[in-house]
Amino acid sequence: MIKTSFTEIFGVKYPVIQGGMVWCSGWRLACAVSEAGGLGIIGSGSMYPEVLKDHIRKIKAATEKPFGVNVPLMYAHADQLIEVMIEEKVPVIITSAGSPSKYTSRFHEAGIKVIHVVSNLKFALKSQEAGVDAIVFEGFEAGGHNGTEETSTLVLMQLLRKHIRVPLLAAGGIGSGEAILGLMAMGADGVQIGSLFAAARESSAHDSFKALIVSAGDGATDLVLKKIGATRLLKNRFYNEVKELELNGGSADELKDLLGKGRARIGMFEGDMENGELEIGQIAGCIESVKSVNEIFDELKSSFNDALNRLKLME
Amino acid sequence: MIKTSFTEIFGVKYPVIQGGMVWCSGWRLACAVSEAGGLGIIGSGSMYPEVLKDHIRKIKAATEKPFGVNVPLMYAHADQLIEVMIEEKVPVIITSAGSPSKYTSRFHEAGIKVIHVVSNLKFALKSQEAGVDAIVFEGFEAGGHNGTEETSTLVLMQLLRKHIRVPLLAAGGIGSGEAILGLMAMGADGVQIGSLFAAARESSAHDSFKALIVSAGDGATDLVLKKIGATRLLKNRFYNEVKELELNGGSADELKDLLGKGRARIGMFEGDMENGELEIGQIAGCIESVKSVNEIFDELKSSFNDALNRLKLME
Repeated sequence: MIKTSFTEIFGVKYPVIQGGMVWCSGWRLACAVSEAGGLGIIGSGSMYPEVLKDHIRKIKAATEKPFGVNVPLMYAHADQLIEVMIEEKVPVIITSAGSPSKYTSRFHEAGIKVIHVVSNLKFALKSQEAGVDAIVFEGFEAGGHNGTEETSTLVLMQLLRKHIRVPLLAAGGIGSGEAILGLMAMGADGVQIGSLFAAARESSAHDSFKALIVSAGDGATDLVLKKIGATRLLKNRFYNEVKELELNGGSADELKDLLGKGRARIGMFEGDMENGELEIGQIAGCIESVKSVNEIFDELKSSFNDALNRLKLME
Repeated sequence: MIKTSFTEIFGVKYPVIQGGMVWCSGWRLACAVSEAGGLGIIGSGSMYPEVLKDHIRKIKAATEKPFGVNVPLMYAHADQLIEVMIEEKVPVIITSAGSPSKYTSRFHEAGIKVIHVVSNLKFALKSQEAGVDAIVFEGFEAGGHNGTEETSTLVLMQLLRKHIRVPLLAAGGIGSGEAILGLMAMGADGVQIGSLFAAARESSAHDSFKALIVSAGDGATDLVLKKIGATRLLKNRFYNEVKELELNGGSADELKDLLGKGRARIGMFEGDMENGELEIGQIAGCIESVKSVNEIFDELKSSFNDALNRLKLME
C-alpha cells in the first residue's frame, strides 16, 4: 500500500489502524498488527487500570513499532486509564465518546499523538479545532457503539472531506484492499478496520464468537439499543429479546434492565453465543475464515495493488 | 469517465444511471440525463398508465439517446404500466420490489434490456439467475424505499462483487466523481444516482423541496416506517409524528393510518414541507445548490478525473 499523511505523521508502513475493541484487542492483537506494519491498538474499554498497564508493558517488550490505546471518554475508569497511558508514554491515544478538546493538549505535552473518533461532521470540526493529529470517522455499518445520525461510511467520507483538513481515516464496512483503495480515491488518508481483526487468530475473542462471525451472512447484524446508546450486534437470542422489547416501545430503563452488566464479556470473551452481547460490523458477511494478522495484511495488500493496477489501466 | 461493461451493453457514454424517483423524474429530467451521456429514467411509480405513455412519447420525441423506465413490481398499476412500456418499446426497464424472474424473459423477447434493483445478496443472486442485463444494489443510505437488512452501499459493494458476475451498479450515498471512482475501484461497473438529480433544475420536484435538500445537513434524514416498508425521509413535522409513534411501539396499522394517502405527492410535488413525505438520501447533506443536469455531469466528470489522476501518481 501507500504513503499518506497518516503514515508519515504516525511512522507506520501502511495506512491501516486496527480498531480498539473490547474483549478482542489486547496486547497480542495490537502487537501483531503493529509488527505487520499497521497501527495496532489496545482496547482499554474493558480493562481496569492495572490490567491496561500490564498490556502496555507487554506490547512495549514485544515490539519496537508504534502502537496505540483507545479509550471511550464516557467510560467510568477513563481518567485512571488515561493516567496509566501518560505514565507509560504510549505513542498514540485514540479517544471517543466525549469531547476531543478535554485531553488533546495534555497528551501533546506528554509527546503522545491523538486521534479522535467521530460519527458526524459536528464532532469532526470540534476535533480539528482541538488540534488532534488525525480523525477516524465511523459509519453506520460499523460494529459495536455507533452514532445517532446513522450516517454511512460512504456519506461521511464525502461530507467530512469537504470540511476537514487533518488526516481522515474511514471506519465501518471495510473488509478488502479494494475498499481501502476506493476510500483513498475519495480522499481518505487511511482506514480503521475492526471486524476483520476481531476474527483474527491473535484476537482474544472466544473461538465460538470468531466461528459465528465467519458464518454470518448478509443481514446478520442490526443496530439496536438506540434509546441507551446505539450498538450494532450480531443477531442471537439476546438480540431477539432486545429487538422485541424495542418494537413494543420499551423504555430506556427497560432496555438497561434487559442489558444488565457484563453481557459483552459473557458473549465475546466467555463464548456464550445465546446470552452474550456480540458486537460486530456488517462486514462480517464478507469474512469467510479465521486468519492470522499477517495473512489478513497479505490479502489486503494484494487486493489493494490489483485494484490500483486495474485503475491505472483506465483511459 | 470510463467505458465499462455497463456502458457497452447499454450504449451510453457514462456509467451513470439516474434513479427513477416518484414526483421528481418525469421525461424532462430523464431526457436531460440521457442527453448528457447517462441513462435517464422515468419514474413510473407515481403515474397512471396514460400519463406514463405521454412521458414516454415526449422523451422519444426529444432525444435519440437510450433511456429507461422504472417500475416497482408491487405497485397496484404495475401490470398496466408494463404493458405501456412494452407497447412503446422503451429501451430499458428497471424493476424493483418484486421477483426479477417474473418479467425478464418477456422484456428480452420484446428487445428491452432489464435491470433489477436489490438491497441484499439473496435477490442479487435471483436476479443473476433470472438473466437480467445488470443489477443495481441500493444501500441503507439511499433515499425513499429501502431494504430490510439495512446493509450499507460500501458493504453491499464488497459482498455482491464476490458473488455476482453481471454488471453491478452501486446506489445510495453517491454525490461526487470521487465516489464513482472509489466504487469502481471496488468493482462497480457504474452507479445509480438519485438525490443529486432530485435537486436538479430539470427535476419536477417542487422548488421548496429542492431548497430543503440544499439546506439539509448531516443527520437530516432517517429511515422510518420499517413496520410497513422502510423509507428514508427528510426530518420534518410529518417525520416527527412517525418517529414518535414508532418510539412508542406504534403498530403497522397505526403507521398506515398516520401515513394516509398521497403524502409523497403533497410534499415533493406540491411543496407542503410540513405534512408531506419527503424522500431523499443521506447524501443530501453534501448537496449545496440546485444545478442543471449538465452542470452536475460536468462536476462529476471533473472530480472523477482529478481523483483518477491522483491515484495514477500513487507508487
